Amino acid sequence: MKFDFKKIINDNLPPPDQAPWRQFPTYNFVGGHNDPDSLPIELLTHACTSVLQREGKTLATYSLESGPQGYLALREFLVKKLKRTAEIDCTSDDILINSGSLQSIDLINQALVKAGDTVIVEESNYGGVLSRLNRLGVTMESVRVDHEGMITTELADKLAKLKQRGIKPAYIYSIPTVHNPTGTIMSVQRRQHLINLATEYDTVIFEDECYADLVWSGERPPSLYAMDTTSRVVHVGSFSKTIAPALRVGYTVANWSLMGQLLALKTDAGSGALEQMLLAEYCTEHFDQHVNNLNINLKQKLDTLCQSIDREFGTDATYESPPGGIFLWVKLPAAVNTESLAAFAEAEGVAINPGHEWSLQADATQHLRICFANPSTETIEAGIAKLAAICHREFGVPVHGKNQPR
Amino acid sequence: MKFDFKKIINDNLPPPDQAPWRQFPTYNFVGGHNDPDSLPIELLTHACTSVLQREGKTLATYSLESGPQGYLALREFLVKKLKRTAEIDCTSDDILINSGSLQSIDLINQALVKAGDTVIVEESNYGGVLSRLNRLGVTMESVRVDHEGMITTELADKLAKLKQRGIKPAYIYSIPTVHNPTGTIMSVQRRQHLINLATEYDTVIFEDECYADLVWSGERPPSLYAMDTTSRVVHVGSFSKTIAPALRVGYTVANWSLMGQLLALKTDAGSGALEQMLLAEYCTEHFDQHVNNLNINLKQKLDTLCQSIDREFGTDATYESPPGGIFLWVKLPAAVNTESLAAFAEAEGVAINPGHEWSLQADATQHLRICFANPSTETIEAGIAKLAAICHREFGVPVHGKNQPR
Repeated sequence: MKFDFKKIINDNLPPPDQAPWRQFPTYNFVGGHNDPDSLPIELLTHACTSVLQREGKTLATYSLESGPQGYLALREFLVKKLKRTAEIDCTSDDILINSGSLQSIDLINQALVKAGDTVIVEESNYGGVLSRLNRLGVTMESVRVDHEGMITTELADKLAKLKQRGIKPAYIYSIPTVHNPTGTIMSVQRRQHLINLATEYDTVIFEDECYADLVWSGERPPSLYAMDTTSRVVHVGSFSKTIAPALRVGYTVANWSLMGQLLALKTDAGSGALEQMLLAEYCTEHFDQHVNNLNINLKQKLDTLCQSIDREFGTDATYESPPGGIFLWVKLPAAVNTESLAAFAEAEGVAINPGHEWSLQADATQHLRICFANPSTETIEAGIAKLAAICHREFGVPVHGKNQPR
Repeated sequence: MKFDFKKIINDNLPPPDQAPWRQFPTYNFVGGHNDPDSLPIELLTHACTSVLQREGKTLATYSLESGPQGYLALREFLVKKLKRTAEIDCTSDDILINSGSLQSIDLINQALVKAGDTVIVEESNYGGVLSRLNRLGVTMESVRVDHEGMITTELADKLAKLKQRGIKPAYIYSIPTVHNPTGTIMSVQRRQHLINLATEYDTVIFEDECYADLVWSGERPPSLYAMDTTSRVVHVGSFSKTIAPALRVGYTVANWSLMGQLLALKTDAGSGALEQMLLAEYCTEHFDQHVNNLNINLKQKLDTLCQSIDREFGTDATYESPPGGIFLWVKLPAAVNTESLAAFAEAEGVAINPGHEWSLQADATQHLRICFANPSTETIEAGIAKLAAICHREFGVPVHGKNQPR
C-alpha cells in the first residue's frame, strides 16, 4: 500500500490537482497562449544555432557569465527596447530577468506585502494577481476602469478614505497598457494623475506591462516608469506574449533599493539561460518586425472572434473591441451566470474564463474573458457557435443566433 | 531624489544584495559550475535545431502540449534513465519537471514543513538546504556521515529520542549517492536500514540525487526511491551537474498523493520549455556517452586538485578522495578558521566555501569545500598555491609547501 502524503501535507495550501493533465480542450479560449503560425521557427532556429556556437560553453556556469540579474545581452536589448517603445531610461543594472513575469510578481509581493496589508487594484484584473493576493491574505481595494483606463478620480477618493482610516496601501497595481481583461490603454492624463496621487500619498506603483507591445496601431503612451520622476514605479514585462509563452522569460525594472532585495529573494540560481540566449540573439535583430507581423495576425483573429460573437450572440453579448492584446471581455445578460456557463462549456470541450476569476465588480458573473490568439479562425467560429448553443440551452439566451430565432 | 524602497520592504527578509554582480573570481572554487570543455556544443546545437524544426510551434502554448508536469518526451527519457541507473520503476505521471532542483526543494518544503517543525539532515550537508531550512524556522537534527554514508545507528537513536519527546520529523533529508560535501556513496545496507527506520517511525525520506550520475566507476547502489516498497520517498534529481547548470532543469519523482499538491504549489506556468526540449532531444541519444566522457574529465581535475593540495598543504590538509562528484571536502588544522580564510582569500580572487555554511558539525570551521569542475587544471594549481600562501600568512599553516619549509 502506498504511503499517503495527504496525512502530513501542511494545512491551508491550495487544493491539490486531482489527476494528471491529459490534453487541451478542443475549443481553448483560456490562457495566454499565442498564435503558433506566427512563430518564426526558421529565424529562431538560426538564432539558437548562432548563439550556441558562439557562447555555448558558458552554459557550464550558473547564470552564464552575466550574474544573477540575467544574460547581459538580453538586458542590453531590453534597455534599448524599453527606451524605444516605452520611453524608459534605464541601464542593465536596473533590470532583472525572471522566470516569467509570474516570478516577478511573486518576488515583488515577497518584498512588499504581507498578510493584513492593503493594496489597490483595478476592479477587473489579471486573475493570477487576484488569486495570489487572496492567498497572501491581502485586502484588495478596487478602482473601476473605463475606456481611458483606471478612473483616477476614484483612486483619489479611495486613497483619501484609506488615509482617514490610517491605511497606506503597500502598492497600487495597474496594467495601464492593454489592460487585462478589458484591453484598455490608459490615457496620458490618467497616467500623470496616478503618478501624482502615488507621490502625494507616498506609495508605490506596480506597473505590469506584459501585453504592452500588442497594440494594433503600433502606438502607445509612455510607461508609468518613464513618466514618474521619483522612481517609485516597479515595472514588469514579459516575452511570453510577444515571442512565446512556453519560454519562461519575463523581467523587472526597478531602482536598486528594491532590486537588491529582489535579487536576495530570487533563490533559484538563475532563470533558464538558453531561453535568454535565444531571445537576446533573435530579438536584437528581429523583435520589431516580428511584433508587427504578430499584431496583424492577432487583429485578424480578434475580428473573426467579434464577427462570431455578433453572429451567434447578437445583441445579447456586449463588448468593446480592444486596441490590442489577446483577449476580449464580454458581458452577457443578467440571466447568465458565467461561472456555471464555464462549467457547462468545459464539459463539452469549450474553455472560457468566467468573469468572477478576473474581476471584483458586482456583475462579474455576467462577464467572461475569451482568449483568441491560440485557436485557428475555424476553431474560433465553431467554438463560439458551440458556446452560444450551450448558453441558450442552459440560460435561455441568446434568443437569436445567425439572425434567426433559436 | 529616488524613492527608497527600503523604508517599505518587509522585515525578516534575507539581506539585500549590495551591488550588481560584476564577474567571477579568478580562482573560482565555489558553486556547482561544470567543465566548459566537456559541453558537447555541436551535438547540443544539432538537437536544438531538430526539435525546433519538428515541434517549435508548440512553444506558442504554455507548457507545450505536455501540461504542467513538463515536456512529455523529457519525462519519458527520465522514466527509462531512472530505471537503468537507479532501478526506479515509475511512469511519466510520477515525474514533475522543475526549474532546477532548487525549485523541487522549495515546493517540497512548502508542502511538508512549517516553522517549528523538526527535520533530520546529514551533519555535513548541502548549504542551500541548510540555509532554506534555517529561513523557514525549522529545527534541524543532524546525523553524522562516514565512508558508508549516513550512520543509521545514530539515526535510530535520534528517532527514538525524538519520539520520547513526542516529535515526529517532517522528513529525513539525505544525499545518499555522492553526498554533498563529502562525496560519500551510502552503502546498500545503510540504505535499507534508513528505509526500515523511516517506515518504523512512519516518516518520509527526501532523497536528493543531483550528483548521482557523476561516479567514476559508473556503478552505484539502487536509489532509496527504488528500494522503498512503501512509497514514502520523494526523489529529486537535476540536469545541472550532468549537462549544464545554466539550463535550469531538475525533476521530482513522487507518488500522486504528494505530486498533486506539488503541482498546485507550482504556480509559475511551467518551467522553461526550450531547455526541456533540448535536453529530451539530446539526452535520449547521447546521455550515457556524455556522462562517461564528463566523468573522465572530472576525475582528471580531481586528481590535479588532490596533487595540488598535497604539494601545497602537505599533511596539514586531510581529505578522502571522493568516488565521484565535483567537490572535495578538506579539513585543515585547528589553527585555521575557514570562515576567515574564505574572506581573506576572496579579497585576493580565490573563492572557497567555508565549512560552516556546509556543515553543522562542531569542527565545521576547520573544513572547506573546493569545487573543481569549472576551473582549468592550470587554474586549480595556481589557485591552490595561492590559497596555501594566504592560509600560511594568516594562520601560520601549512608550515611546509612544495616539500620546502615556507
